[in-house]
Amino acid sequence: MLRRLELAKDWVRDAGNFLKENLAEPVEITEKTRYDDLVTNFDHEVQEKLVKNIFHHFPNDKILAEEDEEKIKFSKELPHLWIIDPIDGTTNFIVQKDNFAIMLAYYEFGVGKFGLILDVMKDKLYWCDSHKAFCNQKELEFKPHKLKHSLLGVNSHMYRTNSGGLQDLSSHTLGVRIVGSAGISYTQLLEGKITAYFSNLQPWDYAAGSIIAERIGYITLNLAGEKPQFNCREKVFTAPKTLISEIQKYIKS
Amino acid sequence: MLRRLELAKDWVRDAGNFLKENLAEPVEITEKTRYDDLVTNFDHEVQEKLVKNIFHHFPNDKILAEEDEEKIKFSKELPHLWIIDPIDGTTNFIVQKDNFAIMLAYYEFGVGKFGLILDVMKDKLYWCDSHKAFCNQKELEFKPHKLKHSLLGVNSHMYRTNSGGLQDLSSHTLGVRIVGSAGISYTQLLEGKITAYFSNLQPWDYAAGSIIAERIGYITLNLAGEKPQFNCREKVFTAPKTLISEIQKYIKS
Repeated sequence: MLRRLELAKDWVRDAGNFLKENLAEPVEITEKTRYDDLVTNFDHEVQEKLVKNIFHHFPNDKILAEEDEEKIKFSKELPHLWIIDPIDGTTNFIVQKDNFAIMLAYYEFGVGKFGLILDVMKDKLYWCDSHKAFCNQKELEFKPHKLKHSLLGVNSHMYRTNSGGLQDLSSHTLGVRIVGSAGISYTQLLEGKITAYFSNLQPWDYAAGSIIAERIGYITLNLAGEKPQFNCREKVFTAPKTLISEIQKYIKS
Repeated sequence: MLRRLELAKDWVRDAGNFLKENLAEPVEITEKTRYDDLVTNFDHEVQEKLVKNIFHHFPNDKILAEEDEEKIKFSKELPHLWIIDPIDGTTNFIVQKDNFAIMLAYYEFGVGKFGLILDVMKDKLYWCDSHKAFCNQKELEFKPHKLKHSLLGVNSHMYRTNSGGLQDLSSHTLGVRIVGSAGISYTQLLEGKITAYFSNLQPWDYAAGSIIAERIGYITLNLAGEKPQFNCREKVFTAPKTLISEIQKYIKS
């Protein structure tokens, strides 16, 4: 596992450098499910690079990747499964040239072994091994906040519609922040800038973040309080274990 | 005016360094109007420093400052008026130690002559003279976006309640971002990361940003389409002049 982790760090860093070097290049944008669900040639290129690297070193590993049309199913039977989100926050990548992330997660028999989130423009790599979490070389620590002294990272649609009672929950906090990227939201969570993150996510959006956050005392659940299924879009949240019961007083599935 | 501008840059930079040097110090937090409207000892200290500097050099100038209990009234009669927001995004300052700004604006007979916004943690000073706008030494340019290819910076309460039809407007864009600081939202606007910014603001929240943004083609209006009054909290937005008529199709006062 450690060899995979060390290689994965290099691959993600290389992919980040590739994006930074090409930031001024024209971007080919395609609509996926609707006008605001976008993919670019760079999403595909980064994914191809990561897939190629994985299969070059580990030809028998399996890969669940956002931009694959035919996707492998997450399963506890698989000894070596990678989950790739080549560019998380594609709209930010297009419009802002900032606030986007490359994410990679690795599972053995359904257990998250490590995750990586690269905040490309800040040049910060968030990662974990089986025990600890880091930002670049610095070990991350859990920063406790009371709920009422917390900020929440949220998805705009869930917030607008009070999905899961998110507006009700937020009224017991200092407010909400919307950054438009699950990956960047997870980096804010890991730094204690937000205390919990709520969104309607695909597995590749929360895989890396949930593994890294788990190392320092967070848990990822769906609104019913169960572990997410990793096989469809689901409303999930990541929050400190110590606040789960208080949060669950306000949210509903 | 240019002497005031050059001095003001130094004062704002000095105040930013003071905050950065004291970032690890304990913060004394006081509630103002409600539990999530906070002020700290650092807001007061930064304001005192700025006020002291202004009066030392220009004893006859007038100052409208966020943390003064008795506030001077904005007026077109005043030959030299400063508007101070010592820490904009106080909640971010407390919780995130990031995403907060120091803002200073200067008016002669009601006309904005220059504004300064310091993104303290990014060490980026956004400012303008009578003609041009800059980030540090780099001249800022207007980056045109079509509305449908735009992101909007919004205030969470206005967004949640569809105030002014903000949800309706946002459905004609790529989405919304909430950063929790008017100053930081204005820096995103000046960099083209958001195309327009909507919030419910006091004069010190929009003074500097509206002056700087005006230099590169933006205008600041209230929801009725009038220039804001500078004498109370008002729902205002700053947007490219080129998009005003399109935006006004969707918003209502």
